[in-house]
Amino acid sequence: MPRKPLYDRDDLIARARDVFWAKGWAGTSMKDLESTLKLNPGSFYAAFGSKEALYELALDRYAEEGAAGLRALADALGPLEALKAHPQRVLEGKSAATACMLSKTFLELQAQSHPLAARAGAHLDDMEAVFANLFEEAQSQGQISTTHDPKRLARRYQSDLLGLRVSSERPSVDARALAMEIADGVEALRNA
Amino acid sequence: MPRKPLYDRDDLIARARDVFWAKGWAGTSMKDLESTLKLNPGSFYAAFGSKEALYELALDRYAEEGAAGLRALADALGPLEALKAHPQRVLEGKSAATACMLSKTFLELQAQSHPLAARAGAHLDDMEAVFANLFEEAQSQGQISTTHDPKRLARRYQSDLLGLRVSSERPSVDARALAMEIADGVEALRNA
Repeated sequence: MPRKPLYDRDDLIARARDVFWAKGWAGTSMKDLESTLKLNPGSFYAAFGSKEALYELALDRYAEEGAAGLRALADALGPLEALKAHPQRVLEGKSAATACMLSKTFLELQAQSHPLAARAGAHLDDMEAVFANLFEEAQSQGQISTTHDPKRLARRYQSDLLGLRVSSERPSVDARALAMEIADGVEALRNA
Repeated sequence: MPRKPLYDRDDLIARARDVFWAKGWAGTSMKDLESTLKLNPGSFYAAFGSKEALYELALDRYAEEGAAGLRALADALGPLEALKAHPQRVLEGKSAATACMLSKTFLELQAQSHPLAARAGAHLDDMEAVFANLFEEAQSQGQISTTHDPKRLARRYQSDLLGLRVSSERPSVDARALAMEIADGVEALRNA
C-alpha cells in the first residue's frame, strides 16, 4: 500500500497558483516555490517534476475554477445576470491578483513561443466559449434578441473584461466603476 | 571636444524598446541586449549604466511616441475621428508587439513593487489624460454632448483598448473586428 504523502497536493497546487499568478513565470524563483510550498528541492521534484509542470497544473486549476465559478453563478442567477455580476466578482474575493492569470501568462511568454503561452491561449479560448454559451442561453430564454451573434458578444465581453482586469491593478483606476459600465453594457442588450 | 560616439543612441534605445516590448523585463537577457545593440558589455555599461536604466529610457520613449502619435492623428483628423482611428492603428504598423508595453511592464513587475511598474503606471495615467483631453476637445467642438464626463469616457476607452491589445496577440481573435466595435462605441457618443 503506498504511503500517504505528507502534504495535500491540491493545496500545494493552489498555493503555487497564487505565487505564479502574482509574480509571473520568470518572476517566480524556485526559492519562492520551495518556501511557499514548504518543500525541499528533492520533495519538490518528486512531487511535481519541474517548475514548468507545476505551472501547467496551476494554470489548468485557475482556468477550471474560473469556468466552474461562472457556471455556478449562472445556475444561481441565470445567464444574463451572471454575465452582469461577473466583472464585479473578479475584482472581489481574496485572490492573488485581479489581472487574469491566463492573460498575464500569455503576455509574458507569447514572444518566446513558450508552451505555457499556447496553453494559456487555449484556456482563454475555452473561457470565451463559456461566455458565448451564456449569451446563447440568454437568447434561448428570451432575455437577449437572437439578432446578436453570441460569439461576437463573447469576444467583446472577454476583451473588455481583460482590459478591466489589467486596469484594476492600477491604484489610480476606479475599477468598480469600470466593472459597472461593462455590466451596464450587458444589461443594454436585454430585449434589444 | 568630446569624441563622437560610434553609435546612434536614439536608434539603440528604439531597438532596446522593441526587445523589451516583445520579451518583457525578465525575458530579456543581457545577451539579448548586447546582440541587438551590437555592444559589448563594457560599451553597454558605458552607454546606459544598467539594464534597468535602459528599460526606463525605452519605456519613456514608448510612452512619448504613443502620445505624440495620437496627438498628430488628432491634428490631422480632429479629436473624435482620432479616437475612432486609434484602436485600428495600434494593431497595424510594424511594431514589436500589439499588446501595450506599458501594461505588459506593469503586469509583469507590479507584484514585486518594481520601480519600473510605477513608471509604467504613471505613463498609463498620462495616456489616460491625453484621451480625456481629446474627449473634452470633442465636446468643445460640439461633437459630443457635454453631459458625458470626459474622464470617465477616457477611463473606459483606455481599459477597452488595453483589452483589445491583449486580445490582439491571440491568433484566434479577430482583433480588427474588436477595434471596429470600440470605434463604433466612440461614434455612438456623437451628438448623443
